[in-house]
Amino acid sequence: MIETPYLLYLGHSNDAADIKTSRGLAVFRPDISVGEYRHDDCGLTLGLPRMDFAAARAAGARTLVLGIANAGGKLGEDLIVDALAAMEAGLDIASGLHQRLNAVPRLTEAAARLGRALHDVRDPRPDIPVGNGKRRAGKRLLTVGTDCSVGKMYTTLCLASALEKRGVAADFRATGQTGILVAGDGVPLDAVVADFISGAIEQISPARTDGGWDLIEGQGSLYHPSFAGVSMGLLHGAQPDALVLCHDPVRPHMRGLPHYALPDLAECLEANLRAARLTNADVRVVGIALNTSAMPEDEAIALCAKTEAALGLPTSDPYRFGVEAIVDQLLHDEPA
Amino acid sequence: MIETPYLLYLGHSNDAADIKTSRGLAVFRPDISVGEYRHDDCGLTLGLPRMDFAAARAAGARTLVLGIANAGGKLGEDLIVDALAAMEAGLDIASGLHQRLNAVPRLTEAAARLGRALHDVRDPRPDIPVGNGKRRAGKRLLTVGTDCSVGKMYTTLCLASALEKRGVAADFRATGQTGILVAGDGVPLDAVVADFISGAIEQISPARTDGGWDLIEGQGSLYHPSFAGVSMGLLHGAQPDALVLCHDPVRPHMRGLPHYALPDLAECLEANLRAARLTNADVRVVGIALNTSAMPEDEAIALCAKTEAALGLPTSDPYRFGVEAIVDQLLHDEPA
Repeated sequence: MIETPYLLYLGHSNDAADIKTSRGLAVFRPDISVGEYRHDDCGLTLGLPRMDFAAARAAGARTLVLGIANAGGKLGEDLIVDALAAMEAGLDIASGLHQRLNAVPRLTEAAARLGRALHDVRDPRPDIPVGNGKRRAGKRLLTVGTDCSVGKMYTTLCLASALEKRGVAADFRATGQTGILVAGDGVPLDAVVADFISGAIEQISPARTDGGWDLIEGQGSLYHPSFAGVSMGLLHGAQPDALVLCHDPVRPHMRGLPHYALPDLAECLEANLRAARLTNADVRVVGIALNTSAMPEDEAIALCAKTEAALGLPTSDPYRFGVEAIVDQLLHDEPA
Repeated sequence: MIETPYLLYLGHSNDAADIKTSRGLAVFRPDISVGEYRHDDCGLTLGLPRMDFAAARAAGARTLVLGIANAGGKLGEDLIVDALAAMEAGLDIASGLHQRLNAVPRLTEAAARLGRALHDVRDPRPDIPVGNGKRRAGKRLLTVGTDCSVGKMYTTLCLASALEKRGVAADFRATGQTGILVAGDGVPLDAVVADFISGAIEQISPARTDGGWDLIEGQGSLYHPSFAGVSMGLLHGAQPDALVLCHDPVRPHMRGLPHYALPDLAECLEANLRAARLTNADVRVVGIALNTSAMPEDEAIALCAKTEAALGLPTSDPYRFGVEAIVDQLLHDEPA
């Protein structure tokens, strides 16, 4: 368990894309985010109080989250120096970077000396089983996508929050680093060994009998030639009763692959349903989530309406316009 | 590189299923298999000369292959003791077991002291890239299956050998432990981290311009809920021009999953073609391979004929009846 609340690290970042994890925490877990740490050359803010490590500790922070990504996911000298200072000030360290905290001797030595914890959220737990595909109790929703990074985590978190507001038990099941830090638990699916992808999802969303929903964060896309294997195993392990398809309408091509166009929404829906039926024959689609953050509001509203009419499914930008219509659809004819 | 020729280990085994790797080597690489090592309580043989370690070394053997599988893939005390004795006699050790040779201090110490090599073929190489899906030169065939363990490796090796006999350049690309020992190279796909599945296949079957074929060993099945993610990533990474569908006609249910029936052949073919088209729009199916080893010959011949008529594709048991008709189909209208 990672101790909360968090101090969110921005470091020297000046590219909004680099602080995705820190921003996700500020947006979805303001309750456990006491402040932000940034150097004078950092031009970004999360709108949280700026604190140094000692002030953050005094304000109750327990863990510094290195919620930034730089090229290659490297732990640079700047990050190491800051992490050492944070530990001296009494903070644990959590990181979703590719390069592991626990692989840096200066950090492990300081942690041992000071009694601090180093959390590499990209390390899967060691006891992940092979999936068995056995039908399990409970209701599960999975977000799927036309591409990577189209808003699956945001959509899933918005759905969890909307269900809770209606008094429906709902648990967000994280499959990526940011989601794991938001939820305090989950599996870094992209780091799991190939034979265990579906088993990892069975493990983090076990049978439930309280009538509530597991809302599982999707990864990748069946149409992304680099990562479709992850998406396929996730789909099978989730045994979803409901799917929400996430899409970025201004994405010019599949992420990182200028030679691949995005799939048609209806075709992508059908491919996901076909694959999902292997482990749950009753799977259905309950909505479309569009990330319209790059569009003016009137255009975004018009596009949602047009998409809704074309596909016959509630369509929204979850973060901008809410997910009420999708939740209505989800609860309207839900499985017993 | 693993030094050849091999001494094939049977140990104390009395279950034919346990010696699958040693048997695969004896069948497909008699040229590099000088003998078999078995204890007096082993009731199995590969039909090779029985040798102790010193005799094998004198006969030219360079590596003892621990080509057996026991429950859990464990390196038991019996295996460790035999591996130590083999190293003393001058042999390297290779293993596809889940538990790694290099994780056993008694083995690593002896190897260092004696100048011997320990090969864990289940360890992927460290430099596997993320797949990029870019079309690459060359012709590639991939075996796919209705299930795990339905003869994909045997079929792929039979096709490689048949093409070579016709003077067509053909390379077997291994994706499992036995295949890697047969070929001397390849990737243990089930041990690769999820994000790198398709990249691993792009790496082991790079662009080729000599007019020859890469014959890629398939793994799992799009219809196996535990492992479909591996099969999906493999399909995308392979960019196959041609598929051969492998099937075990007497399999009562999906391997290890009594609650899952095997898919219909035509449906399974269509699902594989649909997924494969993402990275190669021109993919086609060139044949069906049935593992009829549990059937009398007349029934096997009748089933092949019936399947061929139903699906309109050359159908054979590759190991029993050869693959000439499938190779005819493959070469008949091959891509330029």
